[in-house]
Amino acid sequence: MPSLAGLFFWMNKKTENINKITVTKPLKLDCGKTIKDFPLAYETYGKFNKNKDNAILVFHALTGDQFVAGTNPVTKKEGWWVSAVGPGKAIDTDKYFVICANVIGGCMGSWGPSDLNKDTNHPYGLDFPVITIKDIVRAQESLLDHLGIEKLLCATGGSMGGMQLLQFCATFPNKTFSAIPIACSASHSAQNIALNELARQAIMADPVWDKGKYFLKNTQPKNGLSVARMVGHISYLSEQGMQEKFGRKLQEKADYEFSFNADFQVESYLRHQGSSFVERFDANSILYITRAMDYFDLTKQFKGGLTEAFKNQKTKFLVISFSSDWLYTTKENKDIVIALNSSGADVSYSEIVTDKGHDSFLVNEPEFLKTLKGFLDSMYEKFKR
Amino acid sequence: MPSLAGLFFWMNKKTENINKITVTKPLKLDCGKTIKDFPLAYETYGKFNKNKDNAILVFHALTGDQFVAGTNPVTKKEGWWVSAVGPGKAIDTDKYFVICANVIGGCMGSWGPSDLNKDTNHPYGLDFPVITIKDIVRAQESLLDHLGIEKLLCATGGSMGGMQLLQFCATFPNKTFSAIPIACSASHSAQNIALNELARQAIMADPVWDKGKYFLKNTQPKNGLSVARMVGHISYLSEQGMQEKFGRKLQEKADYEFSFNADFQVESYLRHQGSSFVERFDANSILYITRAMDYFDLTKQFKGGLTEAFKNQKTKFLVISFSSDWLYTTKENKDIVIALNSSGADVSYSEIVTDKGHDSFLVNEPEFLKTLKGFLDSMYEKFKR
Repeated sequence: MPSLAGLFFWMNKKTENINKITVTKPLKLDCGKTIKDFPLAYETYGKFNKNKDNAILVFHALTGDQFVAGTNPVTKKEGWWVSAVGPGKAIDTDKYFVICANVIGGCMGSWGPSDLNKDTNHPYGLDFPVITIKDIVRAQESLLDHLGIEKLLCATGGSMGGMQLLQFCATFPNKTFSAIPIACSASHSAQNIALNELARQAIMADPVWDKGKYFLKNTQPKNGLSVARMVGHISYLSEQGMQEKFGRKLQEKADYEFSFNADFQVESYLRHQGSSFVERFDANSILYITRAMDYFDLTKQFKGGLTEAFKNQKTKFLVISFSSDWLYTTKENKDIVIALNSSGADVSYSEIVTDKGHDSFLVNEPEFLKTLKGFLDSMYEKFKR
Repeated sequence: MPSLAGLFFWMNKKTENINKITVTKPLKLDCGKTIKDFPLAYETYGKFNKNKDNAILVFHALTGDQFVAGTNPVTKKEGWWVSAVGPGKAIDTDKYFVICANVIGGCMGSWGPSDLNKDTNHPYGLDFPVITIKDIVRAQESLLDHLGIEKLLCATGGSMGGMQLLQFCATFPNKTFSAIPIACSASHSAQNIALNELARQAIMADPVWDKGKYFLKNTQPKNGLSVARMVGHISYLSEQGMQEKFGRKLQEKADYEFSFNADFQVESYLRHQGSSFVERFDANSILYITRAMDYFDLTKQFKGGLTEAFKNQKTKFLVISFSSDWLYTTKENKDIVIALNSSGADVSYSEIVTDKGHDSFLVNEPEFLKTLKGFLDSMYEKFKR
């Protein structure tokens, strides 16, 4: 892993050998600006079959990337969804062709704030336009054309991935046979905006951030970014899950130290999550992607509300929520189901009872994985006829 | 309000004219260090009656102080518990004699990290010892002697105030006739430790903090302290309460600005709460007081657990929780009730159904205030016989 001092050199180098297309078709962003000829990085797993009926598009969450399964070639760590995607797994790459693209605004090869702005010969920083979930989703459309996919068997994603999926179905109602939005929301709640704002303020409070121009000194606002990451990790676990995992267990000591060192395991965990994150993610990307999440509001986007957003859907939906998820609650997921029902769509719903909180979709949660596999396999049977 | 540059001058000046005693009796802190001749600041409301049976001790929460009611003479703002304390209110100062002391470790006149360390001729900063809730409570014992109070009619407090109260009852089982712990816990949960650690890391991430030595430059780590305060404000409201109060309402604008300004009211609210807090509170005090909260664990303190902590209680308890409080949940408060019951104590319990979250005890929540008043008045009738 390179030092932070070499970060931007590394950020440019690291994505040299990954799959990318250049999207040449002009894209008018929600902010009004039109972009074209921008890079979109992606990864695929498994093989597209002759019948072209086994393609599954995965949308990643806030800090995810296109490396869903196997080993991430850049970070050398496991893909973020190895619990669900791989040979013989719920999303079986021996059977299905799985695709995932890095979101624009991100930092794993798709067009983002750490990319070079040809107008200034520096990375964009805050000259990057504020993007939306709709922009993110529309930017990915060309990838399906590039891969020769007319219609997906399924599209899925958890958290912000689920939000992209809802937007994808609303914007392109005929692009996927089925859809599995997981632990998400059709419009970001006040609490979710507040948590994102907390993360942004933590980054912007760091003087190294320097209004997004930290790249001029070839560094990162690592203190602020680390605190921002801790916010995330607290919100991804349930109170009960955190209590069971950490409780009041001390970190390799017999008693309190009467200091501000990490006495408790939960402190040590958060510090580790914070400090390791700054090695793999760009602070400005967090600002841009959280902003896109906060702006997400399908109800506002479609006059007539959420029911209107899902009008004329042919897609078959399975909505999944987790009982202990307080970030994207069961209620918020049920609101999606209610809207889909009232728009006449084909929709199933499953609440998985677990204490693992929002993180449930990323870990080995057998009931969830069974539900995912069951629905997917039955959709495949129906689609291939 | 003085500029931040004049903060420490102001911190020394501001508490000149407030009530204080010097605690001369040596106090051995849990960390092992013994202190004596330290200042303890306090305020009283109402009059101590001839029968000496109307005294109520209030313990304040993390960012509170001794100015419970009326106008805080230092900040010129309302006392933090004006909803409950004052003439004719639930805790009626025409009838009761109300006392509140500033916690040691704080910054409103009691001995804290912004006080002068005579060994170095600078404020203590991190040379201040790490204190515990037990230390905080024991430091307040002398005040009761000073005021000539042999036995309190009642002691009460919410949040960290409730934790002090539980400690007070466990340490001094015969000092109060009744006790009302509100929205608290007998030992800090992993999630609560995590949220406090987040606040501490936000402060310590600010280079101005400078290992607690910011006073040398007569300044405050205001960026970090402001972020720390935002963490608190998010945790004080329930998801539903926040949604009802702010939802996705925009801040004096018709549509998204496509920028990182405060587009949403909830962002503006958090920024305001953060920036106004740095004018009235010392960053090191937040570190010390949150640490005391995290170390609080009555179960650990008393071999034999929580039941043992409350053994031989003569005090009559009313435990109050709020249905939408996710910081100190109903479950945590019920655990206190269960322990009190199994130790044979006299205990009532009330869960107030509200969407106002942890903040419920600080706002006008009629059902809560009615419960508080009813219990208090009946205790007074019983005590004065």
